[in-house]
This record gives sequence, C-alpha cells and structure tokens, in this order.
Amino acid sequence: MAQPNTQIRMMEQARGRASFDSNNMAEIIYGSKGAVDRHNAAFQRIERALGTDDNSKLPPTYGDMNRQELLLEGLRAGKITFEDGVDHNCDRFHYASHLGVMANSNPFGLTHVLFIPFVKLQGTDEQIANWIPLAESGKIIGSYTQTELAHGSFVGGIETTATFDKETDEFIIHSPTLTSTNLKMSYNGTDNGYAIFNHVRIPRTNLFMRHCKVARDGSYTSSPLRQKLVFGGMLSGRALMIRCAGFQLAQALTIVTRYSTVRQQGSSSSVGHEKAIINYKHQHSGLLSLIAKSYMTILAWKSANNFYSKLKVHQKNGDHSMLPYIHMEARKMCGGHGYIVISGLPDIVNSVTAMCTFEGENYVMWGQVARYMLKGLEALPVPKDMAYMSCYDCSYRHQGCGTNGEQFLDHGVLIEIFQRRAARLANEVHNLVKASESSGKSRLEAENIHGLQLMVAGRAHIEVFILSESIAQLAMLPASTPVSIKTVLHRLVSLFGLTTIASSLSPFSSSFLGDGYLTTSHFNEMRDRIDFLLEALLPDAIALTDAWCFSDANLASAIGCADGDVYTRLLSWTRQLSINVEAEKNGRVFKKGWEEYMKPFLNRDLSHLDIKAKL
Amino acid sequence: MAQPNTQIRMMEQARGRASFDSNNMAEIIYGSKGAVDRHNAAFQRIERALGTDDNSKLPPTYGDMNRQELLLEGLRAGKITFEDGVDHNCDRFHYASHLGVMANSNPFGLTHVLFIPFVKLQGTDEQIANWIPLAESGKIIGSYTQTELAHGSFVGGIETTATFDKETDEFIIHSPTLTSTNLKMSYNGTDNGYAIFNHVRIPRTNLFMRHCKVARDGSYTSSPLRQKLVFGGMLSGRALMIRCAGFQLAQALTIVTRYSTVRQQGSSSSVGHEKAIINYKHQHSGLLSLIAKSYMTILAWKSANNFYSKLKVHQKNGDHSMLPYIHMEARKMCGGHGYIVISGLPDIVNSVTAMCTFEGENYVMWGQVARYMLKGLEALPVPKDMAYMSCYDCSYRHQGCGTNGEQFLDHGVLIEIFQRRAARLANEVHNLVKASESSGKSRLEAENIHGLQLMVAGRAHIEVFILSESIAQLAMLPASTPVSIKTVLHRLVSLFGLTTIASSLSPFSSSFLGDGYLTTSHFNEMRDRIDFLLEALLPDAIALTDAWCFSDANLASAIGCADGDVYTRLLSWTRQLSINVEAEKNGRVFKKGWEEYMKPFLNRDLSHLDIKAKL
Repeated sequence: MAQPNTQIRMMEQARGRASFDSNNMAEIIYGSKGAVDRHNAAFQRIERALGTDDNSKLPPTYGDMNRQELLLEGLRAGKITFEDGVDHNCDRFHYASHLGVMANSNPFGLTHVLFIPFVKLQGTDEQIANWIPLAESGKIIGSYTQTELAHGSFVGGIETTATFDKETDEFIIHSPTLTSTNLKMSYNGTDNGYAIFNHVRIPRTNLFMRHCKVARDGSYTSSPLRQKLVFGGMLSGRALMIRCAGFQLAQALTIVTRYSTVRQQGSSSSVGHEKAIINYKHQHSGLLSLIAKSYMTILAWKSANNFYSKLKVHQKNGDHSMLPYIHMEARKMCGGHGYIVISGLPDIVNSVTAMCTFEGENYVMWGQVARYMLKGLEALPVPKDMAYMSCYDCSYRHQGCGTNGEQFLDHGVLIEIFQRRAARLANEVHNLVKASESSGKSRLEAENIHGLQLMVAGRAHIEVFILSESIAQLAMLPASTPVSIKTVLHRLVSLFGLTTIASSLSPFSSSFLGDGYLTTSHFNEMRDRIDFLLEALLPDAIALTDAWCFSDANLASAIGCADGDVYTRLLSWTRQLSINVEAEKNGRVFKKGWEEYMKPFLNRDLSHLDIKAKL
Repeated sequence: MAQPNTQIRMMEQARGRASFDSNNMAEIIYGSKGAVDRHNAAFQRIERALGTDDNSKLPPTYGDMNRQELLLEGLRAGKITFEDGVDHNCDRFHYASHLGVMANSNPFGLTHVLFIPFVKLQGTDEQIANWIPLAESGKIIGSYTQTELAHGSFVGGIETTATFDKETDEFIIHSPTLTSTNLKMSYNGTDNGYAIFNHVRIPRTNLFMRHCKVARDGSYTSSPLRQKLVFGGMLSGRALMIRCAGFQLAQALTIVTRYSTVRQQGSSSSVGHEKAIINYKHQHSGLLSLIAKSYMTILAWKSANNFYSKLKVHQKNGDHSMLPYIHMEARKMCGGHGYIVISGLPDIVNSVTAMCTFEGENYVMWGQVARYMLKGLEALPVPKDMAYMSCYDCSYRHQGCGTNGEQFLDHGVLIEIFQRRAARLANEVHNLVKASESSGKSRLEAENIHGLQLMVAGRAHIEVFILSESIAQLAMLPASTPVSIKTVLHRLVSLFGLTTIASSLSPFSSSFLGDGYLTTSHFNEMRDRIDFLLEALLPDAIALTDAWCFSDANLASAIGCADGDVYTRLLSWTRQLSINVEAEKNGRVFKKGWEEYMKPFLNRDLSHLDIKAKL
C-alpha cells in the first residue's frame, strides 16, 4: 500500500500533538527505564510464544472456541507466562492483561496470587522454607478455597468441619451439606468447579501455624494479634487487585481513546463536516476524567506498595505498631479498586467487575470503611488517618468558601474541600446512628437504617485517601522528572478532584453541598476550570494512554490498534471468523444454518394461511 | 426429599407477605387476563419446543457451544418462535427474553423488528400488499442495512452509491471503499457479517416509494414531510425498544430480587445472625428503586403505544398535524430506554447495553433532546410538550419550597419539582449557548462547549416525560382495579420521583439544587419519605417481580429460580458442564488440561534453579 489511509494519518497527527514524551511517563509508571524495558521484553517473549504477536490475525479466543477450548487456551497462556517468569526471574506483571484474566483465574495465576502469599503469611519458618521455593519455581501448584456455596463474609456460618483425630495426628476435613460446597465460579471459560470434602485426612502439621497452633494433644493456642496479622498479609493481595483494576481500566481506556481519535462522526446538521469523536464534549470529558482516575489508581497502588514494604520491615523487627491502621488501609484499597470500577466502563472490562465483588459487594466495603470511621470518631485519640476530621467544625454553617477561579486548580484547596466533606458526612451519619440508638435500636440496626449515608461517607473518606496519596506520589517524583510530565500529572490530579466535585455527571456531587461551604455558583466556577483542563489535556490523550505500554496483542482489540488502522483490522478479523471463512468457500452461504433452519422455514407449507401475494 | 430446604421456605414466606395479588398486577402490565394467559401459553409452547422447559437441565447455550453452535442455536430459537407466532397468530412478545436476544439479532428477529415496519412505512400500497403478507407469514425473510463501517449518524458521509441506469431501469448498488462496508457487529454468537456491494443491480420499482419517487426518466421527487414521516415510522421500532429494555431490566431484577430473598449474609460482627441480603439497606433500596424504574419504563411504553396508535389513525385520515411532536417523542423514547440502562445493572443485561447504542451513544440522544429544547425555547408558541416550561420564572431565586413531610409523596408535588428543574436547566443552558454565540462561536460549537449541561437538561426533560406519562397511566386504570394494586403503583411512582431527586446514590441529585427552591434540608425530609416507601414496599418485592411473568426457562438463571432453591440448581448445573462430566468419568481429573499443560509444567526440568526444598 502506498499512502497511509485517513485513520492512520489521524493517529499520527494526534500522537504528534503531545506535550510530553510518553516514554518518560512510562518510566514514572513502572519505576525506571529498566523496568519499562523488562516489561516490554517480557510481553514480546510471551506474545511470541503464544502466537498472538501478529496483529493481523484474529486472536484465537475470539474465534470459534467452546468452553473447554477456552479453558485449555487459558492453561496454555498461564503455563507460558508462569514459565517465562521463572526463566527470566521477572515480575509477573502480565497478569494484569486481558490474557492475564485467563491466567489469574486458572491454577497458574491462583498459586501466584493467593497460595504463595498465604503460605508466606501464615506458614511457620520451616513451612515457608520448604514450600515457597517449590511453589515459586512451579514444582508444585497451590489452590485456595475459602467461602462456601451459602456462606461468604459470615465466617461463623461456615459448615465445613475440620475434626482433629488424636490417634493418627490428622485433621479430617468434611463437607456435611450441599450448602457447604466450596464452589469456584466467576470467569467464563475457566473451570467452574467445586470441592466437596468427604472425610479427607491431612496431617496436623500441614496446618499453617505461624499465628495459631494445634498441639499434638489437640489443644489450640493463637496469637492475640492473629486476626490483624492475617489481615495485614491480605494487603499485598489487595495492592495487586488495585493494580490489576487500574491497569484493566487503563486497557479499556486505551482502546476507547484510540478509537475515538480516528472514528469520525457528524450529524445531518454538521453539513459535511465530520470530526473525530474525541472532540465531542461528552466523549472528551468522559475519557479524560477516566484517564485521570486510572492514573490516580495507579498512583494509589504505588502508595499501597510502599506502605506494604514498610509494614514488612517493621514486622520483621517484631514491631506490630502499624497494625491498627492495616484494617483500614486494606479496606480503603478495596473501596478504591471498586471505586474506579463504577466509573463508567464496566461493560468493557467484565473482569474488573468480577474483581469488584471478590470481597463482597463493593458498596459493602464502603460501608465497612464508614463503620470503622464511626468507631474512630468515638475513640481517643482518633485514628491517624482520620486526624484531619478534627480540623473542621462540622456543626458550623458556612457563609461560603472564599476560593474562586484559578485557585480551584490548587491541590491544597482540593484536599481541603474533600476533607471537609468527608468530615461533615462522617459526623452527620454518626449523629443519625446515635439518634437511632437513642430511640432503642441496636448499633447494627442503626447502621443498616442509615446504610446509604454510611456508604457515601465511607466513599468520601476513600476519596480523601486517593487524592492525598496521589498528591504525595507527585511530591516524591525524582528531581530529574521533565517539567512537561509534572505539569500533565498535576493537571490530572486537579481534573480528578474537580470532576468529582462539580461535573454535571458526577454521581456524588450533591454530597459536597450540604453545609453552605460550597454552592452551585462555586460549581459553575469549577466547571470553567474543568473546561480549561480538558482543553489543555486533549492533545495529550493518546500519549497518556501510550504510556501504559500496552501492545496490540495485549489489548486484543480491533478498534484499539496503536496505528489507528481500525477499519482494515475490523474487517480482516471479521473475515477470519470461521463462519465467514466457511461461507466464503460455499458461495458465501453459511451452509449449516441455511440447510437446517432457513431453507425449511422458507419452504414451510403455509397453504392453510391463504396468502395471495406472489413471490 | 421430604422437607423443603431453607431457601425454599424463605421464598414461600416472602411470597406470602405480599399486599396484593401478582396475577392482578400482571393483568395491568399485559393489558388483560386474556393477554396474560396467551403470553404464558406462548412461552410454554416455545419452551417445550426448545427443550428448555426442564429447569434442572443446564441451558444449552451455557454448556459447551462454540460461536457457530451458538449461532445455530439462535437460528433454531428464532425459527421456533417465529413459526409459533404465525401458527398461533400471537404477539411476538417473547423477543424480549434472553432467548430473544438471539432471536432479534438473527434473521428471524430482524425481519420482524426492522424489515416489516420499514416496508409498512416507506412502501407504496401496492408494495405493502405484496410484501407484507409474505414477510409476516415467513415466506420471505427481510434484512436491513443502514450504516457503514466508518459512518453512522452523518448520513451525508455515506459512501455506498446507488446509480440509476436508465437503459435497464435499474439501480446499481456499489461499495467503492473498505470504509463503505455495511457491517453488522454486536451480539456475540450471532453471525457477525458484512455486506460489500459489487455493482449489484435491483429494479427501480424495488425502491420504496411512498414518500419519495424516482420516475422512469430518473427524475427524483419527494414529499416535503418525508423526513418527519419516516421518523414517525421509527416510533414503532422505538416503542419496541423501550419495551425490550424495560423487560430485560425486569428480567435482571427478577433474578437479583429472588436471589437476594434467599441469600443470607452476615459479618463477624453480626454474631450468629445472618439475614437475607434484601434486608440490607443498600440492596433493599437499590432493588426497589430499580423495580420502580422498570415499572415506570413499562408504563411509558404503554403510553408510547397509545401515542403511536393515535398517530396511525390521524395519518390514515391524511392528518399530519401530529408530526411536529414526533421527532421529540421518538427521541425522548430513545433517551428513555437508555435512561434505565445506566441505572445500575448493565453488567447483568449486556444486551440492554447494546441496545443503548443502537442509535448512537445514549448521551448523544439526551443532547439531541436538549437541542430540540433550545429551538423550542426560541419558538413561538413553544412546542406543546415544553409548554410547562413557561409556567416557571427561572430567573427568580427562591426562598425555598414550602412543601414538607408527607406532601413529598404527592405526585403533583413531584411533577412540579421535576418540571421546575427541567425548565431551569433548559434556560440555563440556553443562556450559556447564547453567551458563547455572542463571543463569536457558531451554534454548533456553542452546543458542543456546553455539551454536558445540554445532556443534563435533556435528561431532565425526559424525566418529566417518564414521570408524567406514568402518572397518566395510573389515572387510566380501570375502575375495577383493586385498591392494593393502586396503592403499590402509587408508591412506586413516588419512590421513583423521590429517589431521583434525593437518594444519596442518585447521579443527578445536585441538578435539583441550583436555584434555592430545594435545599439539602428538603433532601433529608425526602429521605425519610424514601425510607417509609422502602419499608412499605419491601414485602411486595417478590410479587412485583412475579407479576412480570418470567418463567424459569425465560430467565435461564440458576440463582433466579422461582422456588428459591438456588444452591441445588447451581450445583446441579455446574455438574452438567462438560468439563465436570468428563472429569467425573476420569477419576475427577480434566484429562486434556492435565496431560497437555499441568503435568509437563510440574515435571519440567528445573535442575538449573538449584532448589533444595523437598516435595
């Protein structure tokens, strides 16, 4: 082909308009140039091994696979990625890819995401020394079961029994009822299976005994910190979840941003003038707001990682003083990853949606955060992460916030608005709950009655966390970071803050309005700032998504191709569908469908209907 | 089995708590007892013919079908439902079922939903007399293509050519470029195909010539009303879409409501006391708000149908005076069906999401409604459906609405609040657009700049329409309607209105706050009324979903079964997955996966890694 087509040219031009170098941004995201290179090299190796590196080919899973074949393809992908990780001693970052969806929901992913962290967390030194090298190298594969068919968060309801048999020094694991079945169900195309234990015997010493012990005589002892220590360990899994959610949203956004950059649309009133749909305000605003959220999530993941590393160092030295905050951080992170999920693209990233319910319905998590806050408000001193709440007098009705215009771009101003709202909402719901208690309800009932307000308050606190952690991450950027990168990240944080408060489409906007501090006039001023940021960031949309370093194979999307040549690929992939390949050979007829259904239908005897029209 | 299990008992008790007879409600929904009976009988016949009437069997499409097999299953279902409709002369209501998703996206559905209405609309009397009996009886199957790969709403950009050949009296249809390919793509499992025309000849007389003509000499004439007449015809398709969207949301809600009625959940703090999750405030409130929306949508569909019938009568008499309102009605309906989509369950009903983009992105529709409103505000007199806007002085800043407490349950009060908001938002955005025009922007640019505010204003107008049509439908209930039914419908309308305004989770809540008429204190009062309605409606949740008359086969959901026996069915269906059936025969091992991937992985030579741990 001689000339690049319209879409390729549009994409080239869009890429050329960026204010910064997407490679520099990738280094911020992945930590260093070396990390970016390792990431890209791993993807290339894996895609070559999988045979998905030729973008002109329809991805195998989109073809004509049934459930069994999809499962086998998932096993193949999992085996290849796991072995690549072992052989090249590299981070299994690729679990956060579309292909990874299969991988992390099959044995290869499960052993990495759940089994290994739990052995490390709950195993004795001896158990760890023995099992971890075997699991990490792939000599053994671990599984993980926790909930039962009829029981989730209520651990006390679990029906499966583990009975100690003193004589043989074994536990007997047993599922007495149908409802005690361990059933794994979620991703389609993976092996939806179940475990029913019929008096299965395991040696007593196979119990992970770091924080609790069953002695030879059957006596049970446990560390008073056990529950919190276990929770702390879950933090790493949750940091992984927030990363996966952030990057999966990023994948979806990369696809939509690229397509929106080359897809032209007009209406009968636009008189011959079609423009790329990213220029339409709704798309423009929606995409950049979500890109900002995705960046915030990735920054929050970096924070969570730092936090977890610090925790591990402390705990190694026997210092458990960070434990009181762990519950909260873990829950906020769950709230956080769910938080981005509801932001608009659930139908594109089904697996993010599944992730959103890993730990119970997401709103429930917000509720838990809020319940922790209620306790915090009654504690002395208030927990560290809630200290900001005492800076504001929430009973006071304001004359209005004095900030205006450009000042709303300031991160300090935004943090104050977010904190003030969270403090007020926490106090309001606290008063509501206390009032219900005074009228004779139990705390549990009172919390349920005001469940919605609790969630909104919990979410507000999570948003303070996400905003402040993102700002903290910006402050920690290396001195060598180009100004252009700092500028665009600063804008993304402002955009995130302002759209959360004042976008016409923001779901919790009205929760910023309760006390007269902000008014709808402020909203109008903020909307002008949002418009300014949207204009400033528009030329960077493609570079912001390029920086995530998704390869075409990784996105596995006809309309998300990096070069913009969407229609060529769309048609090429469609032609490769087995139905079309076969039809092409049979005079462009899908023979089976025609012979079995269409022909008999059209030739059906309808003489009883007395139709006079002629064919 | 002797005793019904816990879940079955919970469902029986829940059903027993209803304040009304769900059969009576079904008669309101479907129009009469006769209609309900015909509906149920048709479903039974079709399910028997499909072999899906045995609920203990895993639905075939959930098993191990690949894309081709899914397509064939769709053809089989389409053929069976179409033939049933012909043989029993019944409404093809079943298109609004899960099975129907396949049916309406394959030839059997397409001919019914698009081809037949278009022939009726655009064909001459002669063409209609000839083609319609053939199409309705199934002697011919019609298709429909409109958009091209690179062109949607911008009709002027269409590249396909139809050249009149005077000599042969034929049109030559041709696709000159790749981007002019007609490509149908949406539902998975249907035949994603495409049409490329290579100088295809069709007789001139095959052009549908009711509203435009190409004469023997090639000269073109058209009715000045053509565009609006064509639009009017699309109204029937849109009424169908709103019905499908309403009932598909209803299906999802039936599943979730039933599961929420028998699924128990607790937390470590609930000390041995698990309760059905419908009792948790978030679930309770979310489900009932959505049930209310689904009822509103179904009522709006009934309104739309009435409107369309009236229109047809008028037009038959050559009276086109209703035409000016048709554009608007059609667009509001599209806005309406999209409206319910964003309400929270898109991941459950993927096909509703697809429907939401049938006519371009849904927000675009809201924008179109708003653009019509801008024109309307500048017209004299204002269009009939916008007349309410002139009742309110939108420049006036209020001291606050005088309504309180119980009064917020009143439908008249709610309508006033909705109308006042829509009027204000329309005026605000109108002023913004005019201001941008004064600063030198074109109308088109100005509308794009204020695109988000336009959408919110458009949505507000659509919500006035949905609320007022629902109230109008209630007023038209037959005198014989039981009081219990009237009461529950009245409550649903109030709940819809109040949650839209004041729920902590309502997305556009803040748009009710702009002019000081309502304040957050009013919101708090409304939330008390919402709590009252939620308590009052909770015992009716199951009956409200039973009234939609979905059979178990129709829902095709393990967790949505009518008798509540979810865990038995869940496990039974899982056991029927071919992977599990095969594994059962092979010592509970999925042999192919084990032999091809797991075994070689575990036996891989890892001597280079020097692992000392023992297996």
